[in-house]
Amino acid sequence: MKKVYTVAEMRKERRKLSDPVGFVPTMGYLHDGHLELVRRARVENKDVVVSIFVNPTQFGPEEDFDAYPRDMERDLFLLKEVKADVVFIPGTEEMYPPLSSTWVEVENVTERLEGAARPGHFRGVATIVAKLFNIVQPARAYFGAKDAQQLVVIKKMVSDLNMDLEIVTVPTVREYDGLALSSRNVYLDLDERESAVVLYKALDMAKKLHEMGERSADVVRRQMTELIQNEPRAIIEYISIADASTLEELENIDRPALASLAVKIGQTRLIDSMPLGT
Amino acid sequence: MKKVYTVAEMRKERRKLSDPVGFVPTMGYLHDGHLELVRRARVENKDVVVSIFVNPTQFGPEEDFDAYPRDMERDLFLLKEVKADVVFIPGTEEMYPPLSSTWVEVENVTERLEGAARPGHFRGVATIVAKLFNIVQPARAYFGAKDAQQLVVIKKMVSDLNMDLEIVTVPTVREYDGLALSSRNVYLDLDERESAVVLYKALDMAKKLHEMGERSADVVRRQMTELIQNEPRAIIEYISIADASTLEELENIDRPALASLAVKIGQTRLIDSMPLGT
Repeated sequence: MKKVYTVAEMRKERRKLSDPVGFVPTMGYLHDGHLELVRRARVENKDVVVSIFVNPTQFGPEEDFDAYPRDMERDLFLLKEVKADVVFIPGTEEMYPPLSSTWVEVENVTERLEGAARPGHFRGVATIVAKLFNIVQPARAYFGAKDAQQLVVIKKMVSDLNMDLEIVTVPTVREYDGLALSSRNVYLDLDERESAVVLYKALDMAKKLHEMGERSADVVRRQMTELIQNEPRAIIEYISIADASTLEELENIDRPALASLAVKIGQTRLIDSMPLGT
Repeated sequence: MKKVYTVAEMRKERRKLSDPVGFVPTMGYLHDGHLELVRRARVENKDVVVSIFVNPTQFGPEEDFDAYPRDMERDLFLLKEVKADVVFIPGTEEMYPPLSSTWVEVENVTERLEGAARPGHFRGVATIVAKLFNIVQPARAYFGAKDAQQLVVIKKMVSDLNMDLEIVTVPTVREYDGLALSSRNVYLDLDERESAVVLYKALDMAKKLHEMGERSADVVRRQMTELIQNEPRAIIEYISIADASTLEELENIDRPALASLAVKIGQTRLIDSMPLGT
């Protein structure tokens, strides 16, 4: 497994790889959700590139950029085990040299949910992902279903800017009790970890209500809200039942939809999502 | 010479081309300045793609999008003569399907000069050029030096977003009297055509003052202003002596600089530019 630290080195390594190349962009502190992306990329492509870069431009000034968990040694060990070919580990200055001033802005789908809660977040995500795609030039890039709005934004960007690659959605990997794997789960203490399962429980209930024929988005949102409010450590940021492609809130669940939510458990903000009817 | 009308066709043709591919994006109504770009691309690459697309998103609501001159038959004849391999002629809906909502924004260098005079112009330029680059995937793209700020913006975008191609600047092609070739010159009547040479005269004077050792940007700007004000059909929009890479206005011309200007001749807005000390 080759480790590269600069854009120039990455381009040089890229020329040696065999097409198609699969790409897994990450912010490191890898868990089995990330590894699942790499495994899938491994099966579907000749060569696999993984990037590890905690992207400062997708964090707000009050957010956890500095505190975001990092463990490079462990990450590299895990990536070797799942047989990544190249790991791209650029520094901040390498990705954002002084005077960088170009941004990729995806309008509309970025205004709601995470975009509303975290202004500028998706501008940072779209920009870094566009940059990484231009550097790695993959045939396919792999993203986890958990960050559902991120996936909608990236697919929109790829389509709108005519980028020549396929975005592959990989189902969310969950703990035994349903909690979605996330690097931020490390912030939870034991009690909070137990409470955190409430996100999954609410989504699972939404799914079951939908399967039983409930089509009123409001009924589903209200039931989810009630369930989470019964968990004293949980504070709801949003609960959404939205059109799966535009992310506009639905009244009637009469098309492919997405249940998603952001909930604070103590100081830790967690998100999760569940497709309804797809 | 192959003509293609859709993104899908263009991708298909692209796969048949030999690398390196040279690319000349145009808005059609070709003149010898465009053809010079194609000739240069022809020499430096195995295959050459030219696009013809009058890009609506770079025109303001009060600007000349509808009136912009078009002559496809003549354009295709000329491109055949200079041996383009593929001409990409997408329709507006092909490049901007309904609900497209992704933009490439280059900050700072877009705020001045043309960017200030034409709000949104460079957002439209950067976005369409990014899209075309993603579709055509050239090793080199060719632009005329006349639209100097456009070149600065595109080079900045390519560098900031790590696009994997080279931007080649081709010197401005001028008429016998110095007027820069432009598709918009067709708007000029005979008297205006004669007056229009004043843009070149002012730039040529700036160049000569600089060559003679004048280093005060203000002196140069004032002399240019005076010269143009003596032409009754000319109305100055801006006259700039700026840093060649940041486009910040200079006090002292102590580094590579760019003289540029926008002048209305009757109803026709013309721009031109001249490097100083490069």
